Amino acid sequence: MRYPLSIARLIEELIKLPGIGPRSAERIVFHLLKAPAADCDRLAEALREVRKKIHHCSVCYSVAESDPCPVCSDARRDPATLCVVERPADMMAVEKSGGYRGLYHVLMGKIAPLDGVGPESLRIDELVARVKRGGVAEVIIATGSDVEGEATALYLSRVLKPFAARVTRIAHGIPMGSSLDFSDEVTIKRALEGRAPL
Amino acid sequence: MRYPLSIARLIEELIKLPGIGPRSAERIVFHLLKAPAADCDRLAEALREVRKKIHHCSVCYSVAESDPCPVCSDARRDPATLCVVERPADMMAVEKSGGYRGLYHVLMGKIAPLDGVGPESLRIDELVARVKRGGVAEVIIATGSDVEGEATALYLSRVLKPFAARVTRIAHGIPMGSSLDFSDEVTIKRALEGRAPL
Repeated sequence: MRYPLSIARLIEELIKLPGIGPRSAERIVFHLLKAPAADCDRLAEALREVRKKIHHCSVCYSVAESDPCPVCSDARRDPATLCVVERPADMMAVEKSGGYRGLYHVLMGKIAPLDGVGPESLRIDELVARVKRGGVAEVIIATGSDVEGEATALYLSRVLKPFAARVTRIAHGIPMGSSLDFSDEVTIKRALEGRAPL
Repeated sequence: MRYPLSIARLIEELIKLPGIGPRSAERIVFHLLKAPAADCDRLAEALREVRKKIHHCSVCYSVAESDPCPVCSDARRDPATLCVVERPADMMAVEKSGGYRGLYHVLMGKIAPLDGVGPESLRIDELVARVKRGGVAEVIIATGSDVEGEATALYLSRVLKPFAARVTRIAHGIPMGSSLDFSDEVTIKRALEGRAPL
């Protein structure tokens, strides 16, 4: 005897999701079978809602239910500063820090030739066009500090410099509250290189 | 800015599932937003189907779309042997082994006083009633080999012995294809205790 068809089908759909293997899919299915029916319905409904309501903002390409997104349409934000991030989650992280009042541009990935992601698959042309249109005094590149993020930052600085007054990169260094002996060599090297006058 | 409402709600539903934290929930959401809309719909549909179609078999308490389940209603199976397991997944594992032709009884858990699971929350009364009705020559207890599984096995053997001809426990020992020096002390001790004449 195998699992009943409807269970097998749900497991099959669940293992397509990132980070879920056959074992965790099974656990999820039996959790849902034990939970009140309403839980399962709410999850199904939430899935449908997300697909129906979420679109990419036509200005910054982040995810939002309105277009332009709440950040792009907020008149109190400084339109002369653009922060370039890889994914919407990175934008949310910067927002949570509370330290930024400018606008964003979400690339929807990073240049990764080994995974077949070239500059043309990202929202880079749209970023260049946005900067070309004028009114942007500074572009802050906040892509990741891994190899692909660094390469993307380098590429962006090259294509943006002809049009933007300033292209900057967020600082990398020792995390706040951490100490030198907990930091890896690469971070310490970068922190030294990025030292600033006191 | 926070996540749009529909994304926040989906994340909230996802983190209720076992093994999914806020980070993996985010990853799943952005995976679904990138995937074709049909993927998301299929998952939502599979969730609804499972809740609608899956019931517990009224004989063995396993999950099935029909009642009695395909195993209980299979006339070729031996009704004189009952294998007692904790969860439907354990039953599927025994079925996959191909080494068993009797029937099952699924407890839907194990006795775990620390988690507030006593014998009365499991399908133990139903098991005793089933054995009392007669026709069962052997009850094979196949609960887990952890502390709770062992305690459940002991409890079951006590309540079943007045009614069943034979109450047995599956063997625990060195896994097939493995060697002694890869096995832990408890397994080796148990393998020695459970030795059988050649």
